[in-house]
Amino acid sequence: MMEAYTHFQQQLEELKQSLLKMAALVEGMLHDAIQSLVNRDSDLGKKVMAREDEINAMENSIDELCLKLLALQQPMAIDLRFITSAMKIVSDLERIGDQAVNIVERVLSLNQDPQLKPYIDIPRVAEIVESMVKDVLDAFVNRQVELARSVCKRDDWVDQLNDQIFRELLTYMMQDPKTITRAVHLMIVSRCLERIADHATNIAEDVIFMVDALVIKHHADVKEAEKQR
Amino acid sequence: MMEAYTHFQQQLEELKQSLLKMAALVEGMLHDAIQSLVNRDSDLGKKVMAREDEINAMENSIDELCLKLLALQQPMAIDLRFITSAMKIVSDLERIGDQAVNIVERVLSLNQDPQLKPYIDIPRVAEIVESMVKDVLDAFVNRQVELARSVCKRDDWVDQLNDQIFRELLTYMMQDPKTITRAVHLMIVSRCLERIADHATNIAEDVIFMVDALVIKHHADVKEAEKQR
Repeated sequence: MMEAYTHFQQQLEELKQSLLKMAALVEGMLHDAIQSLVNRDSDLGKKVMAREDEINAMENSIDELCLKLLALQQPMAIDLRFITSAMKIVSDLERIGDQAVNIVERVLSLNQDPQLKPYIDIPRVAEIVESMVKDVLDAFVNRQVELARSVCKRDDWVDQLNDQIFRELLTYMMQDPKTITRAVHLMIVSRCLERIADHATNIAEDVIFMVDALVIKHHADVKEAEKQR
Repeated sequence: MMEAYTHFQQQLEELKQSLLKMAALVEGMLHDAIQSLVNRDSDLGKKVMAREDEINAMENSIDELCLKLLALQQPMAIDLRFITSAMKIVSDLERIGDQAVNIVERVLSLNQDPQLKPYIDIPRVAEIVESMVKDVLDAFVNRQVELARSVCKRDDWVDQLNDQIFRELLTYMMQDPKTITRAVHLMIVSRCLERIADHATNIAEDVIFMVDALVIKHHADVKEAEKQR
């Protein structure tokens, strides 16, 4: 029995490491997508696109690992919730990868025309969004509810910066119709970043829900134990 | 044993009905969001926003039902995959509801200004997208892989119509800068519809994966049976 338990713990550890590895890959895609914008480096952008298959393969393999753990180990309470949350998170990570690819699609068009304006706010938003993706996965594997809450707070910040980017781009468009196509591409890049922040926030809410449910469960256990005394 | 099995089947049926009910609610939100645009009916839009809490509550209650089924029934193979897919699908449905609310936010702004143009393509896209949400849930609960594939095909159609909407709005913006703000709102409505179609397509892919995995599993079982002859 002890051996089986240890084997299960090893598999859970493997699951955590796989999730962190996938998150690091997705963060890298996002980082390179923005670098391909800022440095007008379309080759780097194309490399981001090439990583989409790898992300999809990771999603499937983590899903399979989770199903195996559910079927063979029949985990209870905390581990059950951890594994089912992992399956939701892996979908979010895959979609963050998709958004990085969506950004690159716009960047490849933008890089063919003269640069509309120096890119200042978009890299700032991207940096915040990257930190959200990184921190929320750490919060998940280490069950750090405060870190998850800080991710939710950063989402408001992203929304505000995004509004500012939209308003600035609108003024360009109104002053000179020749800028409209480029400004729309940049608006969509900005919205992709907002979507990624939404995915990170969804994960953060899952983490808070998971940990809080454990707290409630824990309280129930303590009450149960008191009753039995 | 027979009684326990029947009880489990009942709970699975309850899960299916809850998913269909949530899907119907989300479809209704989308439908009303577009009606509030077309008929310039901001009151209807506000009613859509008020349904967001209900959707969130449904997500939580279906998640809890799934966790209960996993913990207490310890289902294997097909049922396990069905329940874990249900947990992913419920997240997608909740986000489709969010997108309907995002649409309404833009509609409330649009309804304050004179109408930019007759809305023709957006309601068409919305109709396709509604059919995708409806059909993909039917495909899931009845394991209809062909219906799921038809949902994926409709996604390409949505993308094409969306490109057309974008191009048309760009011409308005270029001809008259006074239209820019309204055109951007409409572009975002159109992108929200595209995101909803993406969610439906994600669900469709889950359905295809689930059913195909069962087919593969089935083939493996047949081979195993042949070996044992």
